[in-house]
This record gives sequence, structure tokens and C-alpha cells, in this order.
Amino acid sequence: MFTPVAIGHIVSPYKSTSEIPKGLGAKHDAEGVLKILPEYEPGLVDVEGFSHLFVIWMFDRSEGFDLTARPPSDSRAHGVFATRSPRRPNPIGLTVVEILRREKNEIHVRGVDMLDGTPLLDIKPYMSTIPAERLRRGWLAEAEAAKK
Amino acid sequence: MFTPVAIGHIVSPYKSTSEIPKGLGAKHDAEGVLKILPEYEPGLVDVEGFSHLFVIWMFDRSEGFDLTARPPSDSRAHGVFATRSPRRPNPIGLTVVEILRREKNEIHVRGVDMLDGTPLLDIKPYMSTIPAERLRRGWLAEAEAAKK
Repeated sequence: MFTPVAIGHIVSPYKSTSEIPKGLGAKHDAEGVLKILPEYEPGLVDVEGFSHLFVIWMFDRSEGFDLTARPPSDSRAHGVFATRSPRRPNPIGLTVVEILRREKNEIHVRGVDMLDGTPLLDIKPYMSTIPAERLRRGWLAEAEAAKK
Repeated sequence: MFTPVAIGHIVSPYKSTSEIPKGLGAKHDAEGVLKILPEYEPGLVDVEGFSHLFVIWMFDRSEGFDLTARPPSDSRAHGVFATRSPRRPNPIGLTVVEILRREKNEIHVRGVDMLDGTPLLDIKPYMSTIPAERLRRGWLAEAEAAKK
């Protein structure tokens, strides 16, 4: 395998997991900054041409994993790979953010759901999308329907 | 940081990078199988309720990284984080696939662009989408326009 390196960290308004909006209908419009280490700044050229980015990061305050998880948006348990639980075999998180602007090695974004100081592993451009009408969303759609 | 573990590997029709469709208009409709280690099978429960998955994997046949990359779809170089280049500080790949069916610990999918045998790190449900009309796609849109 490989040894992960932090390419930077996130500046987020959330200092503890209890502050992060969770569950059905939770809004993810918090603003934050992807603070990339200055040595990687040349790697950011043209990133601001994209409206959205995939951010890959580490759940650094989670330990161990479970094979099932009970998400905040449902009363039932599901396989961990059918959820966004932090307790996964590899503690890797994935968030889609909207770029507000880039200032040198700092990318200001909307849509953060990570804790302040979370190590960043990678950034990738969001190049294409699946039309909403083609998506099936399994237990999440069922939980939404049950709530209505 | 953490020590990545392979949760399985991918069965793909592509044995070498030259076989993977690349560049503008490349179709990614190849079928493959996410072969998850049997010990993680309980983690897959309910995954098949989703039409699409994020697959996070390792570029295991790439070494080192560059801060800029010249993508197959453009004649210009861009920062590595504005591209999907395999030569990145963390050799982590991300692919959106469509689920065809699950058979125990094997998820049959469409849309693979990884090499056969690629180690899998994580699977996450694709829960929401950005409407195409809200996407800006920077250098990629420019390269597409220039080609017309």
C-alpha cells in the first residue's frame, strides 16, 4: 500500500462532531478553507475554474471500524459501505464542496462537513454529474418517505 | 496518519493503462466487479439500494507525483489537483460507478476506469448530485469548446 501524507488541513466552523448538521434535511452550507501546504500550491493552478471539488480527507478523530452503522437519518442499521459513517476500515472521508475563491494556497469553499483541522489527502475536480432522475437512493429515500 | 488496507480489488477488462478510454468524449461504460474480501461482506448490506457508488481506490502502478499534469483531453498543463492524473501526492483514485447487481461480496458495476487488480480502499453511497446547469468545468469546458 502507501503511506498517506497530509497535503494540508481544513479550517472549519465545527470544533466537535455534535456541531455538524446531521440527519434528514440537514443543510451543508457551512463555509471553510482548504489550507494547502505552500509546497503544493503549484498543484492548485486552474482548480478555481471548476465550480465544485471532491475533497478526500482523513477521519482523524475516529478510531476503529464497525461493519454496520446506524446513520443519524435512519433508525435502522446498514452496512458501513452503504453509509457515510466515520468508523470505516479506511478512515477516509469524501465531501463535495463549492469553490468560492482561491487565494494562493487557500481555497475558500462552501459545504464543509469536516471538523476543524481535519487533514486533507486529495482534491479532484468535479467534472460530471449523474442526473437526479437516474439516482436511486435506497434506505435514504425510504427514510425520507417514512418521515413525511 | 493511518495505514491503508485493501478492502478488496477490482476485476476490470483493462490490463494496461493504454487500454483505458481517455480524452474528450471517452466513454466509461466498461463493466467490472468490486471483489470485496469476504470478511467485509456484512459491510455491504443495503449498498445495492443505491444506483451509484463512489469507489475510492489506490493507483498501485503509479510512482511519485508531479505538481502539474497534462491531461489526455487538453494540450495544456494544469495543477495536479485540477486533474485526475495518477501521479498525485496521495495515489488515491475516485470513480463513480453504476451498480448492476450484488452477489454476496461481489458488486457488479458499470463505469470502471481502473486497471485489473487495483486495490479498493472504500465504497460510499452516491446520495446527491449537483445539477449540471450549476457546474463550471474550467479547462475541460475550454478544451471541449476548442475541439468543436
